[in-house]
Amino acid sequence: MVEQITSMEEDFAKWYTDIVKKADLIDYSSVKGCMIYRPYGYAIWENIQRILDNKFKETGHQNVYMPMFIPETLLNKEKDHVEGFAPEAAWVTHGGSEPLTEKMCVRPTSETLFCEHYANIVRSYRDLPKLYNQWCSVVRWEKTTRPFLRSREFLWQEGHTVHATAKEAEEETIRMLNVYADFFEKALCIPVVKGKKTDKEKFAGAKATYTVEALMHDGKALQGGTSHNFGDGFAEAFGIQYLDRDNQIKHCHQTSWGVSTRMIGAIIMCHGDNNGLVLPPAVAPTQIVIVPIQQHKEGVLEKANELYNKLKNIFRVEIDDTDNTPGWKFAQHEMRGVPLRLEIGPKDIESNQCVLVRRDNREKSFVSLDELEVTIPALLDSVATSLYNAALERRENMTYTETELESFIETAKNKPGYIKAMWCGELECELKLKEVADVSSRCMPFGGEPVGDKCICCGKEAHKLVYWGKAY
Amino acid sequence: MVEQITSMEEDFAKWYTDIVKKADLIDYSSVKGCMIYRPYGYAIWENIQRILDNKFKETGHQNVYMPMFIPETLLNKEKDHVEGFAPEAAWVTHGGSEPLTEKMCVRPTSETLFCEHYANIVRSYRDLPKLYNQWCSVVRWEKTTRPFLRSREFLWQEGHTVHATAKEAEEETIRMLNVYADFFEKALCIPVVKGKKTDKEKFAGAKATYTVEALMHDGKALQGGTSHNFGDGFAEAFGIQYLDRDNQIKHCHQTSWGVSTRMIGAIIMCHGDNNGLVLPPAVAPTQIVIVPIQQHKEGVLEKANELYNKLKNIFRVEIDDTDNTPGWKFAQHEMRGVPLRLEIGPKDIESNQCVLVRRDNREKSFVSLDELEVTIPALLDSVATSLYNAALERRENMTYTETELESFIETAKNKPGYIKAMWCGELECELKLKEVADVSSRCMPFGGEPVGDKCICCGKEAHKLVYWGKAY
Repeated sequence: MVEQITSMEEDFAKWYTDIVKKADLIDYSSVKGCMIYRPYGYAIWENIQRILDNKFKETGHQNVYMPMFIPETLLNKEKDHVEGFAPEAAWVTHGGSEPLTEKMCVRPTSETLFCEHYANIVRSYRDLPKLYNQWCSVVRWEKTTRPFLRSREFLWQEGHTVHATAKEAEEETIRMLNVYADFFEKALCIPVVKGKKTDKEKFAGAKATYTVEALMHDGKALQGGTSHNFGDGFAEAFGIQYLDRDNQIKHCHQTSWGVSTRMIGAIIMCHGDNNGLVLPPAVAPTQIVIVPIQQHKEGVLEKANELYNKLKNIFRVEIDDTDNTPGWKFAQHEMRGVPLRLEIGPKDIESNQCVLVRRDNREKSFVSLDELEVTIPALLDSVATSLYNAALERRENMTYTETELESFIETAKNKPGYIKAMWCGELECELKLKEVADVSSRCMPFGGEPVGDKCICCGKEAHKLVYWGKAY
Repeated sequence: MVEQITSMEEDFAKWYTDIVKKADLIDYSSVKGCMIYRPYGYAIWENIQRILDNKFKETGHQNVYMPMFIPETLLNKEKDHVEGFAPEAAWVTHGGSEPLTEKMCVRPTSETLFCEHYANIVRSYRDLPKLYNQWCSVVRWEKTTRPFLRSREFLWQEGHTVHATAKEAEEETIRMLNVYADFFEKALCIPVVKGKKTDKEKFAGAKATYTVEALMHDGKALQGGTSHNFGDGFAEAFGIQYLDRDNQIKHCHQTSWGVSTRMIGAIIMCHGDNNGLVLPPAVAPTQIVIVPIQQHKEGVLEKANELYNKLKNIFRVEIDDTDNTPGWKFAQHEMRGVPLRLEIGPKDIESNQCVLVRRDNREKSFVSLDELEVTIPALLDSVATSLYNAALERRENMTYTETELESFIETAKNKPGYIKAMWCGELECELKLKEVADVSSRCMPFGGEPVGDKCICCGKEAHKLVYWGKAY
């Protein structure tokens, strides 16, 4: 039989690492803190990339590729930025046997490189906007690491745009946040809270950071993607200017935005169960696995292959004709989170039907072989909707509202999830809540209705609603 | 007007760098020896990736992603390999503010990482073969660099496979060489010589290296892609073993194969002319540019946009409705190598036609607007065939056969191109030819007819036909 995994109720962290290993998503190597993306794990990323890349191109963005190194002086150009990233940079000091005249870090993010390039190529309002994106890996020298969630190297995309006006930059920032929110909800079936980060939590060098926040099975939050408005801060530091229609030289306004392989961690922790991974159909490497029953009986494998050949042009489908038992195969493909299983045996063939079993709720249906092209898309849609609704319901059930500090602390201690509470805007209160309740501000949600008018911490007048929580 | 570029007859190297800059393929940054792939240059790479990636998947390969770092002890495991790559490795010595306990190089190639992983995951003959590929960037600390041809960081794919038998590994090595040859000839329109490298020129750690060699406009050769058979050398060094059907533990056999952004350099130097880039239709980011003529006249832009909307679902098409003059636009899109230009003005609209102009030979044709969907694919095919034939004819005209050393040296000095000559197989002769004629062995071509029976260098008996040349 397929080896059992630790149950999530027993040990959520162990359950998580069991899945990433046993669903063949990753492997470890002698490169500490980095991970190997195995074919099945990487295929999820390829599906994510394809969907998002199309969306980026539809919204007018172009892909580029910047060097992976950043010379120290270049990294140092924007003060807040270097303070945020230098402490966890990996430094290249030697090329071949010779020491470099200037050390370079492996990019932790590429704002500085894009800024230098924009300063080179932007001259006039006619050159604007530039809407660039890059798919690459970045390096941050983390002390403690966890697969997909926090590793020293990870894969991501980073969009970097430059605009004539502050208004356009803000519009772009929000547009891309919405692209992310839409992707999380539609493709990954993960409901998100959209909002603005507090100053403490914003990106090093940004004027404003927006975020999509997702809630995991264990009630911890995960920052899914961020979109930053830089204003003209980087443009001033790097001298990115343009000659406007009115013949005045002006500084540009910029944004950046990114999502990473962390999203695979979010998929696991939002949808997974004690049988393993549960993959949203849009990004599942295999959407349907065909399992022949009594496959040595005449005609079974032939029929299974016939179905495979019919379906493979419409769906991502595989056939498991190995010598393992059906029971082993069921468990194995449940572990791998394949959304639908198609069983076909001698009796099914006789009655021109097959059995479709959903991964999310194990519901079975008997379907005529002539109706598969219609039934399967409907079932995949239904799986996606159910995953989303289940996650949404769980989040609603784990979202609390607090108006008194004592009760806030009590909830933070005993009830995993989000706490909605008002905040005065002072860093001091944010730090104190971290200290007394071990929660951080996740975001100030867009359109969030106030739940009072006093700061949960200091009791002073407060207009900002904040989602608080423990986070990955 | 669009700025002129240096003519290739005047200064080939300058012509080349003029094109890479003026066709907006790359830009430089403060990261010495590395380059920025600008949107137009990166889009060529994306098209290359899409075609090759489909081909790899069709032939059963899966994509993975390995860490970008290699610890020194891991790099050192295979003796020949480390000797080949350590001298040009970039070394990471610090993470954050702390020195690493073991320095790591940024991958120059990933054999060692794949081997370590294969040693982990391969147990039985049932696990074989593993056919993996990775798209990534690699770093080699070159002293002198040139865009696309030799830079400290470049983009590539590296296939790494592991097999039960020597025979399967050899078959895979040749299969992938043929995939490359096919891609060069059909997609890039570049004829190649397929063959085996001499021991001196083979990959560090390989048993045999095969290559596809292309000839550039200036008569220099460019190694387009290589495919290596490792035998069981790496498997022994890394302990990659499997339990065979006969219950014996055996070492695996391995291959690796790769092509890189060098191919973009090959496209430029094989097809380009004094008006700029000439792109093969299969990888051109824009296959057709629509240039409205007298675009301010009523109906012209409307018609141009109507054509754009009609064609954009079938081809990669753009419309240039900027305020520049048609002459400027023609020159600009010729510089960028767009295979076809579609001109449409008031008179054309009256007669329900347009003008199609080929980039490669500037041939014009008048085509009915109702026949575009048929005429354009035929024209694009014809451009591709012409590019290939012109390159093949040039190569034939630049390929010489020599049987006497003196005449070999004379040809090497005065006639750019390939020299076919027999070789005894001794390293000494290969080194001497480099010294006296400044040529290296490009490959021993598959199925190459002998042109004599004596070594061009030492006069001893010789059975190996070699293509000699100067190379990028």
